[in-house]
Amino acid sequence: MISVNPVYIPKLVLIGVGLIGGSLLKVLQKENAVGEVVGVGRGVENLQLAHSMGVIDRFTHDAAEAVQEADMVVIATPVGAFETILEQILPHLKKDAIVTDVGSVKGEIVLAARRVLGTQIDQFVPAHPIAGSENSGVMAAMVNLFVDHNVIITPLPETRTEFRSVVEQMWRLTEARIVEMDIDLHDQVLGVTSHLPHVIVFALIDYLSRQDKQALHYQFAAGGLYDLTRIASSDARMWSDICMNNKDKLIPIIRGYAQDLMQMADQIEADEGDKLIKEFEQAKLARGRVADYRK
Amino acid sequence: MISVNPVYIPKLVLIGVGLIGGSLLKVLQKENAVGEVVGVGRGVENLQLAHSMGVIDRFTHDAAEAVQEADMVVIATPVGAFETILEQILPHLKKDAIVTDVGSVKGEIVLAARRVLGTQIDQFVPAHPIAGSENSGVMAAMVNLFVDHNVIITPLPETRTEFRSVVEQMWRLTEARIVEMDIDLHDQVLGVTSHLPHVIVFALIDYLSRQDKQALHYQFAAGGLYDLTRIASSDARMWSDICMNNKDKLIPIIRGYAQDLMQMADQIEADEGDKLIKEFEQAKLARGRVADYRK
Repeated sequence: MISVNPVYIPKLVLIGVGLIGGSLLKVLQKENAVGEVVGVGRGVENLQLAHSMGVIDRFTHDAAEAVQEADMVVIATPVGAFETILEQILPHLKKDAIVTDVGSVKGEIVLAARRVLGTQIDQFVPAHPIAGSENSGVMAAMVNLFVDHNVIITPLPETRTEFRSVVEQMWRLTEARIVEMDIDLHDQVLGVTSHLPHVIVFALIDYLSRQDKQALHYQFAAGGLYDLTRIASSDARMWSDICMNNKDKLIPIIRGYAQDLMQMADQIEADEGDKLIKEFEQAKLARGRVADYRK
Repeated sequence: MISVNPVYIPKLVLIGVGLIGGSLLKVLQKENAVGEVVGVGRGVENLQLAHSMGVIDRFTHDAAEAVQEADMVVIATPVGAFETILEQILPHLKKDAIVTDVGSVKGEIVLAARRVLGTQIDQFVPAHPIAGSENSGVMAAMVNLFVDHNVIITPLPETRTEFRSVVEQMWRLTEARIVEMDIDLHDQVLGVTSHLPHVIVFALIDYLSRQDKQALHYQFAAGGLYDLTRIASSDARMWSDICMNNKDKLIPIIRGYAQDLMQMADQIEADEGDKLIKEFEQAKLARGRVADYRK
């Protein structure tokens, strides 16, 4: 049986053994908050690595087999794989097992969970730890990845209160801040503050790489652009998956932003330097507000 | 008389006493490469500060008076002020005085120099040290600001060879790399690698600040967006000035980039995840090439 205070999860199954799941498990192992841990994935090498790191006790490619007798299932795969995995595990899932995830998009995930889980939707606690690194994979997992980062929980009306408490207590062990948020608001705010910036930077580097005298552009980008473009080293497949699964929010966000850029070009063309100064000053003030949240 | 090896400039006039000029002068003072230094500016407090820092020996508001007997005039004002300053100083400028600048845009500056200087255009050595900080003003000046940074010299066909050598030798004292470049190419490459990224980030923060639940957006931007948006703390007036003065290059650059973003939104809408993955992977590779230039 799971206990809440202190958190103890006798059997945990991690589906998708990467940076996020690996880092969470490192904390749970360190805090003796977990018993048996089974890793589920496709790549044998990655699973063997996780095993040798002590992140998981054993591994399998068969999610259905793995979740039998599990007290908690953490799904840490790309968002697009979520529904298929739920279909695989549902027939073997205990009625008092907690299902949670770490997906960067919540709307599509919850829709998929409702479709597959039916009345068992009350077992699902949607969660999104906001942390990452330009290095991905379980090899990059670290015990302090979530310290002072936000973990957003977007509980459903049906989510069992005690399950939500377990997931929150589990994440508290990582020294993250727990924030509860509405699903729709999550996808909008993360669309603007995370998904849009990734799209912007991927597009900027793409644009740069298509210029004549490419090498010269790389050379001069290496100064000011280096910090700016760090997130373009993130996993391409994962970010495409996130964009596709938050399309309803993200498409108008990207278009709205691109229109703002077009407007700035128009202002420059119309010699409206004063308007540009005002917008840049506004941005500088707003950036100060962003920086305040670092303290 | 100016000497080249080692560089020694008996009288130098710095017009526009800020981060760039102040940092250059700190190096020249440290290397005993300069005699008398006169600072020209509008704000008394700033000039007094520069004087008390030892960056300048005396100051005046009168550029015309200052440049009499000067061996070198360094114009470090916003690009938009360049032409007026040249008009003020020309009648008092020695025929063997070197005029150089630090402007981020070269095309407009050279056009202005040709208009004003006439046959004396051979005294002008256009230069652009690529360095900066989100802190501006002479207070932020530092002796190592240019170390391992690029200083681009865009000499004109008329530029006197010995003058070009003096300016290059002067900048070598800062431990910067000296790069010679065509004016047009400079404005295009800097438009893509510096001006566009500033516009992108100013626009992103503006966009963020206009969202509902602004504070929540600031809070979540404080994680991943913090590095990305550092350049939005740059001086708004200066960056507007740069954009306006590189408009011929920058407008098509901004529009081309915004169209790329629109295309990405279209691809997401059309469920073309594969195209998106390819573009993101391409960006990741290109970012690696940018990173290579850091070594």
